Amino acid sequence: MSHALRFFVGLSILALLLSSQALSQQPYDSLAQKIAREALVSNKAYDMLNELCTKVGTRLSGSAGAAKAVTWGKKTMEELGFENVHLEPVMVPHWTRGTEEKGFIFFPDGKREKINVTALGGSVATPKQGIVAEVIEVKSFEEVRALGATAKGKIIFFNRPMDRALISTGAAYGGAVNQRGRGAVEAAAVGGVAALVRSMTTRLDDYPHTGAMGYVDSIKKVPTAAISTMGAERLSKLLASGKHIQVSLKLSAETLPDVESANVVGELRGTEKPEEVIVVGGHLDSWDKGQGAHDDGAGIVQSLEALRLLKSLGVKPKRTIRVVLFMNEENGLRGGTAYASKERPGEKHIAAIESDGGGFTPRGFGVADSLAHLKISGWASTFGFIGADKIQRGGGGADIGPLMRKGVPGIGLNVDGHRYFDYHHSDHDTIDKVNERELALGAAAMSILAYMIAQEGL
Amino acid sequence: MSHALRFFVGLSILALLLSSQALSQQPYDSLAQKIAREALVSNKAYDMLNELCTKVGTRLSGSAGAAKAVTWGKKTMEELGFENVHLEPVMVPHWTRGTEEKGFIFFPDGKREKINVTALGGSVATPKQGIVAEVIEVKSFEEVRALGATAKGKIIFFNRPMDRALISTGAAYGGAVNQRGRGAVEAAAVGGVAALVRSMTTRLDDYPHTGAMGYVDSIKKVPTAAISTMGAERLSKLLASGKHIQVSLKLSAETLPDVESANVVGELRGTEKPEEVIVVGGHLDSWDKGQGAHDDGAGIVQSLEALRLLKSLGVKPKRTIRVVLFMNEENGLRGGTAYASKERPGEKHIAAIESDGGGFTPRGFGVADSLAHLKISGWASTFGFIGADKIQRGGGGADIGPLMRKGVPGIGLNVDGHRYFDYHHSDHDTIDKVNERELALGAAAMSILAYMIAQEGL
Repeated sequence: MSHALRFFVGLSILALLLSSQALSQQPYDSLAQKIAREALVSNKAYDMLNELCTKVGTRLSGSAGAAKAVTWGKKTMEELGFENVHLEPVMVPHWTRGTEEKGFIFFPDGKREKINVTALGGSVATPKQGIVAEVIEVKSFEEVRALGATAKGKIIFFNRPMDRALISTGAAYGGAVNQRGRGAVEAAAVGGVAALVRSMTTRLDDYPHTGAMGYVDSIKKVPTAAISTMGAERLSKLLASGKHIQVSLKLSAETLPDVESANVVGELRGTEKPEEVIVVGGHLDSWDKGQGAHDDGAGIVQSLEALRLLKSLGVKPKRTIRVVLFMNEENGLRGGTAYASKERPGEKHIAAIESDGGGFTPRGFGVADSLAHLKISGWASTFGFIGADKIQRGGGGADIGPLMRKGVPGIGLNVDGHRYFDYHHSDHDTIDKVNERELALGAAAMSILAYMIAQEGL
Repeated sequence: MSHALRFFVGLSILALLLSSQALSQQPYDSLAQKIAREALVSNKAYDMLNELCTKVGTRLSGSAGAAKAVTWGKKTMEELGFENVHLEPVMVPHWTRGTEEKGFIFFPDGKREKINVTALGGSVATPKQGIVAEVIEVKSFEEVRALGATAKGKIIFFNRPMDRALISTGAAYGGAVNQRGRGAVEAAAVGGVAALVRSMTTRLDDYPHTGAMGYVDSIKKVPTAAISTMGAERLSKLLASGKHIQVSLKLSAETLPDVESANVVGELRGTEKPEEVIVVGGHLDSWDKGQGAHDDGAGIVQSLEALRLLKSLGVKPKRTIRVVLFMNEENGLRGGTAYASKERPGEKHIAAIESDGGGFTPRGFGVADSLAHLKISGWASTFGFIGADKIQRGGGGADIGPLMRKGVPGIGLNVDGHRYFDYHHSDHDTIDKVNERELALGAAAMSILAYMIAQEGL
């Protein structure tokens, strides 16, 4: 056989296998359609999200909002009639933005111009009177490291944009976010007094987008803030023009002692193998901007709805489906870590599904484990009617990461992510940016997959 | 051979054919990626849409805005360096809303409550002092026809919602929109004095959504308006409670004499078969609500951008690609009709592509012609990298309908339509509801397909 012929025969056998597998899934197709219908008609995911966004609001770990969210999550699970509803306590970081965050550009003639900045999560405060310094713009850590003595006393301005050309906004984020995570460390290492980081969005807007940053013990902790993309463009232009400008920063952020919080857990017990557990979850904490609607209120209500849909249709899974509302994904991952490390005698996790990409139209799933990927790929056609039939290799979620590292197959709900970073971690992330149909169909996709795993194993 | 076996062998031969076809498309894959990159990086479609929405604004046929849009379209094509830029004049209807449209619910105790209404396009005015009448709610024309004498002097309230359970919002629209189109005729036929129609959206909001309606010569012309979905729910609840309420309507709509307007045409001449033409278009007119951003500003700028992308990459199509900005899709289809009926000696249209489903993430194409569908299905994998690889049978667009009826294969850009009817024909349809990346990728998809047809024929 020629290589080409062998290849085609191989392909055709694969097609045969996939089609026969697809055909054998007919029973789930009908249930899947009922699930989607109930999700759309009841609109329950949206109603829950509206409540979470407007009655609870932002819920940064350690805040009063986060405590309220835990209470809301437990109460909601109880009202929905979930089984074994309980809290699993976990100590979480308690960082606060404080009351003040301001930035200005100062011109040689004494005039000043406001720039929209916001402290990055974890940043130390500036001195009370603020910092005023010259600014050096860089696009990479290599550039910072090459600055040498010129960096001393300066504010280092990290201005490498997310790459608009990439089709995956997640990949574009991945290519820029190290500036946010490590900018302060790199700035301090060369004697910089603060790090100013271009907001992580491809959009030009005047809202700063916050997010987590980190320090290392061996290097001085300098304050760090995000600047809006419009502010970043403005500042960059002024610097390029050679104008002798300075920038002031005033941040009142503070890290307080850890606080006790909790993961919220509830389930539908399996009828045949209750000891085998499929986790479905998102994260209950959010940043202290907007309402945390897409990040990750959406994942929370979709997880709740995934289980409610099965209950409302009277479906009884063979294995246990457990909803976990994880605490502290944004700045610590303490909830995900605690969940995975807790001893659960006699229990075996067979899969974990997370929604943390926003409440947009579902496109499919990302499956980290290769065998699980193969199996779920064979189920793809069941998700075709809602357009969620792209089963990709690789994926999961931050909260289920610790479970995945213990060998549990992790699965992430993949959505149409073009709008995600328009809102992400900013005052834009509010309920009015969520379309109820897109949200509902994501919940339906999770519900269908969780049920199929509960019946078929993985 | 058993039936099942024959089926599988058939499937596997199909898979073989499809895969070999997919593999042979490699040259277009690389160009397709360049086109998408340029669309995302330049952001030109969004910039043009922003200009159309904010500098021109709404552009209902016959209005000053429509005239301005024609001038804008021609100037834009000239600036982009299109060839043979010209206007093709067409007489269009000139309906105006006038200055007044008001609705109230009157309670027995004399109190009144405002309801948000808007005249449907084409409606006659109410008498100057308005109409005050009792209301009868119906869900279908059968119900209206069964009313008999009780309908006399009443306002007929058509309150059948778009079916939320359908995955396709277009199908949900199709299942409800006859109330808008023919409600006034059905109401008048039984002696009703006006028709009030639930807005065509699955969302509960307080904006009325307008749209076209029609009269027939043999039946009295009674005024007709859309009521917001929240207003419809409220009114329905009051009627169900048995309260003796009345509704007032005051509309000042008017149909003026036809006005000369134009389709705007420009092209990229083919290098080998310039007489074979691929039309790419959308409609330049809009309703007089919001800014006509998704409907169909998006289609207009995507069509312009589709050609600009090819020009900017220095690509020379073998056949002619022609952009047509059609006038008067919303209330007359005069532009599409005129374009198709114009004599064009020595020219042959081989395909027509329309974007009129909003500037959302492209999912693929709907192809009306079965042979064209087969051919384009073989190209699907080229659109996979942007997720626009679903090639459906059936589709097209209203403006290219007259061409299709003359035998030209019509193709519609299919998009993620969950949000479309949130905005459609209402004050919500503004530029801030458009995501620049989704818009750009739709333009890229059209550009790639137009070019492939120009090279390969159809």
